Amino acid sequence: MKQLLLAMLLLAAGTRARAQTTAPLTARLGNVRLTVALAPDGHLTYAVSYGAKPVITPSRLGLAFADGKGFEGPLVLTGSETKDVDDAWQPVWGEVKNIRNHYQQLTVHLRQPAADGRRLDVVFRVFAAGVGFRYEVPSQPGLAYFTVQDETTEFNLPANHKAFWIPGDYDSNEYTYTSSRLSEVNTTPIEPIQQRAAPKRIQTPLMLKSDNGLYINIHEAALVNYPAMTLNVDTETFGLSSQLVPDATGTGAKAYLQAPEHTPWRTIVVADNAPAILSSKLILNLNEPTKLTETGWIQPRKFVGVWWEMHVNKASWNYSDASNLKLASTDWANLKPNGHHGANTANVKRYIDFAARHNIQGVLVEGWNVGWEDWANNWKEEVFDFVTPYPDFDVEELHRYAAGKGVKLIMHHETSSSVTNYERRQDAAYRFMKQHGYDAVKTGYVGRIIPRGEHHDGQWMVNHYNRTAQLTADNRIMVDMHEAVRPTGLHRTYPNWMASEAARGNEFNAWSSGNPPEHETILPFTRLMGGPMDYTPGIFQINLESWNPARNQGRQVHTTLAKQLALYVTMYSPLQMAADLPEAYEQHLDAFRFIEDVAVDWDDTRILAAEPGDYLTTVRKAKGKDEWYLGSITDENARKQALKLNFLTPGQRYEATVYADGPGASWDKNPMAYRITKQVVTSKSALTLQLAPGGGAAVSFKPLKK
Amino acid sequence: MKQLLLAMLLLAAGTRARAQTTAPLTARLGNVRLTVALAPDGHLTYAVSYGAKPVITPSRLGLAFADGKGFEGPLVLTGSETKDVDDAWQPVWGEVKNIRNHYQQLTVHLRQPAADGRRLDVVFRVFAAGVGFRYEVPSQPGLAYFTVQDETTEFNLPANHKAFWIPGDYDSNEYTYTSSRLSEVNTTPIEPIQQRAAPKRIQTPLMLKSDNGLYINIHEAALVNYPAMTLNVDTETFGLSSQLVPDATGTGAKAYLQAPEHTPWRTIVVADNAPAILSSKLILNLNEPTKLTETGWIQPRKFVGVWWEMHVNKASWNYSDASNLKLASTDWANLKPNGHHGANTANVKRYIDFAARHNIQGVLVEGWNVGWEDWANNWKEEVFDFVTPYPDFDVEELHRYAAGKGVKLIMHHETSSSVTNYERRQDAAYRFMKQHGYDAVKTGYVGRIIPRGEHHDGQWMVNHYNRTAQLTADNRIMVDMHEAVRPTGLHRTYPNWMASEAARGNEFNAWSSGNPPEHETILPFTRLMGGPMDYTPGIFQINLESWNPARNQGRQVHTTLAKQLALYVTMYSPLQMAADLPEAYEQHLDAFRFIEDVAVDWDDTRILAAEPGDYLTTVRKAKGKDEWYLGSITDENARKQALKLNFLTPGQRYEATVYADGPGASWDKNPMAYRITKQVVTSKSALTLQLAPGGGAAVSFKPLKK
Repeated sequence: MKQLLLAMLLLAAGTRARAQTTAPLTARLGNVRLTVALAPDGHLTYAVSYGAKPVITPSRLGLAFADGKGFEGPLVLTGSETKDVDDAWQPVWGEVKNIRNHYQQLTVHLRQPAADGRRLDVVFRVFAAGVGFRYEVPSQPGLAYFTVQDETTEFNLPANHKAFWIPGDYDSNEYTYTSSRLSEVNTTPIEPIQQRAAPKRIQTPLMLKSDNGLYINIHEAALVNYPAMTLNVDTETFGLSSQLVPDATGTGAKAYLQAPEHTPWRTIVVADNAPAILSSKLILNLNEPTKLTETGWIQPRKFVGVWWEMHVNKASWNYSDASNLKLASTDWANLKPNGHHGANTANVKRYIDFAARHNIQGVLVEGWNVGWEDWANNWKEEVFDFVTPYPDFDVEELHRYAAGKGVKLIMHHETSSSVTNYERRQDAAYRFMKQHGYDAVKTGYVGRIIPRGEHHDGQWMVNHYNRTAQLTADNRIMVDMHEAVRPTGLHRTYPNWMASEAARGNEFNAWSSGNPPEHETILPFTRLMGGPMDYTPGIFQINLESWNPARNQGRQVHTTLAKQLALYVTMYSPLQMAADLPEAYEQHLDAFRFIEDVAVDWDDTRILAAEPGDYLTTVRKAKGKDEWYLGSITDENARKQALKLNFLTPGQRYEATVYADGPGASWDKNPMAYRITKQVVTSKSALTLQLAPGGGAAVSFKPLKK
Repeated sequence: MKQLLLAMLLLAAGTRARAQTTAPLTARLGNVRLTVALAPDGHLTYAVSYGAKPVITPSRLGLAFADGKGFEGPLVLTGSETKDVDDAWQPVWGEVKNIRNHYQQLTVHLRQPAADGRRLDVVFRVFAAGVGFRYEVPSQPGLAYFTVQDETTEFNLPANHKAFWIPGDYDSNEYTYTSSRLSEVNTTPIEPIQQRAAPKRIQTPLMLKSDNGLYINIHEAALVNYPAMTLNVDTETFGLSSQLVPDATGTGAKAYLQAPEHTPWRTIVVADNAPAILSSKLILNLNEPTKLTETGWIQPRKFVGVWWEMHVNKASWNYSDASNLKLASTDWANLKPNGHHGANTANVKRYIDFAARHNIQGVLVEGWNVGWEDWANNWKEEVFDFVTPYPDFDVEELHRYAAGKGVKLIMHHETSSSVTNYERRQDAAYRFMKQHGYDAVKTGYVGRIIPRGEHHDGQWMVNHYNRTAQLTADNRIMVDMHEAVRPTGLHRTYPNWMASEAARGNEFNAWSSGNPPEHETILPFTRLMGGPMDYTPGIFQINLESWNPARNQGRQVHTTLAKQLALYVTMYSPLQMAADLPEAYEQHLDAFRFIEDVAVDWDDTRILAAEPGDYLTTVRKAKGKDEWYLGSITDENARKQALKLNFLTPGQRYEATVYADGPGASWDKNPMAYRITKQVVTSKSALTLQLAPGGGAAVSFKPLKK
């Protein structure tokens, strides 16, 4: 009531007063302070500070329409109101059990005087760890359908921060990160993964570090019915400006909208220490609650899969070595098999057996369905039908066999980015899944998008991903999207959207350049800010030559084995793959024990130490248990991590099992040396982990009976 | 065996010999002679003559690829063969019972010396009434996927023919025809229907008339997996060159193909009289036979519909006058009705009653489903869901009611060109239809296409139409497509694809400019060359003011009432609408008797008199009966048509009922005056019809008992 009164007062009096001045509006929570003002030229600006330190210096806001009557020009401030919110919610699964949602909201009402009084609101939410804001076009006479031509949001930075960035490719996030000053951003020397970015266009989440001790992350939340945002960097002024991903028409149009509508939230997470960035729930809080009422079918799990053996050239996705096939006219049953097709019934059973023996709930199978003979890079509409297995993959038998062992098979739908084809077949594909006992699907979007001219990260595809999240939910199917747009916290709204790839995963280590040892220390500060990543950790056979000496010459994973274990904790996902082959794990069942034990859903998470590009130590408490799992990783430098175990329940004794790099271990020279030790600890204990270059350590803490 | 031997000899000997010369290759049938030669510059050319008269002077052929290694440059002729075919087939429905397919085929084998010996065949078929040819890219090493950037087919004409043309709009065929010399082609003054054509780009089917007495029609057959062809006119040399409809990428790409693949047939129908053009089955013959084995469910029919009353502003498609609605979030059940929604249960029952009383088998209902409040021109993805009726349309009750009266309801699916949305929902929409007793659907594609940037007539949409024909066939549903690409004879392959609009239909007469009186005398020579048109004839209330004086001021149909009857014969379609309102027909049940009687499927068709732009008289024999129906129409000029009835069965007496323009009738001044007379005739009788300006006559011939 007090807030309502305040709002009414503001509307009645303050509003009018403010409309005639440019007195800045403010909001604040803790150290974070937001200032919004109409500049003398009529442009709306905002600024953010953290304590006494500027985070965002005055920066313009605006939204340009294709009809030229948008909100990029001078505006009139017609009012504003604030409100305070402090509540909490429980995610279906996640890193913590309870999430506090505490912010002060400032809504600014604007009018475009040059265009029939068109109205726009900008809504800001100030949290203890940053700010989110979005544009809202309210329902109003004379403005129904409109096309966003550009969003002119700026993020002006006060200094030449250190940045962790990847090129602003409209179709891929699968890059290694460059750590440089903003003044040095230049994508030109970087080999494009899919599509060359403009020289100074980079991706979000963008992680920044100031010389005066601030950590800043810029991204977006709740990307719905809108293209993803990339950032243009002014390497002289250190200003960032939004660059939305365009549509297929070549007109520069970005989003086709209908009022009332709003943009995604633009997010600025800020703290004076790196762990606080990782602990922030700002992005999740800015997403809508789920509408699902029954969520018991959503089951976080670990899985193995017929997958890595294709990456290491031991098996193939394709059943035959024929090429230039056509989906509809090929006699798939009578192709000549190439003899090394991975997704054959016997091999899948081997994975099911392994999973059943080792507390792994799922088995992913790629290459089970016809179309892989010439699936990629042909910009071809009809590649897969998602319902026709290769002749050596017995759907019925595997359904029966897996069910008998209590294992769930995970479906794979590679679309080859022929999304129109997938959409035509999605209903039938999900029916097929349910008929055969599948409750989870991994989708893939390799290659150029069809509808031709659309981008992976444009509005049309964003709508596709979100529609797929809804459609799978309608079918009670969990989904893990690869090559999709980078996440923005939508797993709050769609808790069946368990994970995405949308970054450079472990798979790149199977190819020549691989991922540098620092890669996994950066990802949590960038890609994972938006949501879980299916990074596919758990590679034990670091040297890949052994799988296929001729084709894998010189190839290896760029971590130690122990670091692969640590990733199960540092790289959060409720779907977590044990990506290596059963025969690799059979050689190291003592180390595999950590993967068997580690949880995928958590009641609590603590970031014990973190520095982007350098190191990360995370500890998490398993859902509903007094078990803790810790992961600690380093970049190419060896490190000692001295830890206090004061997160443990006081008075409780735990058996700590430490999976550490072995003596002399290093990612490049001696990656597979590890040592497993056990000790009894309490909350008063200390623990020092010795991380090898490119190494890591994993620790399980299990309560001992009193 | 003889042909096989011949082919082998050609391959063994002739092939080699020919490859080293440029001696022209020829084929001929009757008056039509084809000459194919490699020009001195290495370009393949062809020429066509009719008797001694040139039809196509030497014209280049070529196919350019996006990779620059196509077949537009100099080629090497590596061989050729000919074969003769003379067979016949029976269409599922049509204008005649038996169709003779008689042609001489010449296949020319070519090699592209500059591109790794890539191979191309050009296949020509010479019929008694013209030529068809297509490009075939055979299966070959080193050429699997390719993108057609341009087709460089020319049709060089020897003189400045008279042409009947419409602008080469990539998205619409709904134009009135311009009759001009080729030298005068200029689309600039013509108001675009959807998208402005280049000044000299025109559509096919293009009808031409030479000063030396030839009638020539240029079109295409079997448009599959390829964009439609428009024609660029050289107004100085009278050369035509193919201009394919581009895709969405803005790169000029036209078709994404995979070898083996072929283009549609390019067709040149030629004769020394106009009726022979209309009788030609060349285009149908160049299409593939249907794969359907059971076709009993395909039932040609007449229908009435809740449709014209919306065009004449008596009712509305939309249920409410709300606007700016969103499909998913609108409470459709509780919108405020506007009180004049056409598709309400009671009104539909009125149409069902009328149909049941008057031998009309179907009732189309438009505006039955939610979404019409702001459906058009918003380039909006989610407009219709195709399964949610408005609250005043009782699907179950109407199913029961129609079935009880032996009437079939016809479904309407307006997509508003949001084709991605339709494709996602097609399966569910057809399931919904089958559940509720519908066996036919009229689809619509008004507005700009989504996927955005694609055109109605581009490859992606062509594939959509063909896929829809197949998908409806799979569901035993007949389909009538509006605003789709112009037909190319695919109703042979998909006999459930009963009709298309793809031209300027009768509906334009409900709006101000209307269709000129000559319009219906041109359409059979242009649009209908490719297949049946749902022109929606049968408007009796010619003056439209009576329906809504305020909104229809000065509006009228641009024909006489009698001409509307004649159109049931002159404008062939197996789905033929009686488009006016029941209350209009009730005023003229004597004239409506012709619509009740006239057939929609025929054993024979004779063109008794025809001149494009001037007049047309057609008589047809009803399927399986000795009944004949004749239609005769004229342009704005009054005409006397003296007819010999020698098509009638000799010795049989018939009652001829003549539905003629009344005394003093004319399309503009006195359009509704008609006179019905009866007489007894035999095959030896003569009959003279007096056609008013913009008028026509219809005649039924029913056998009398001997």
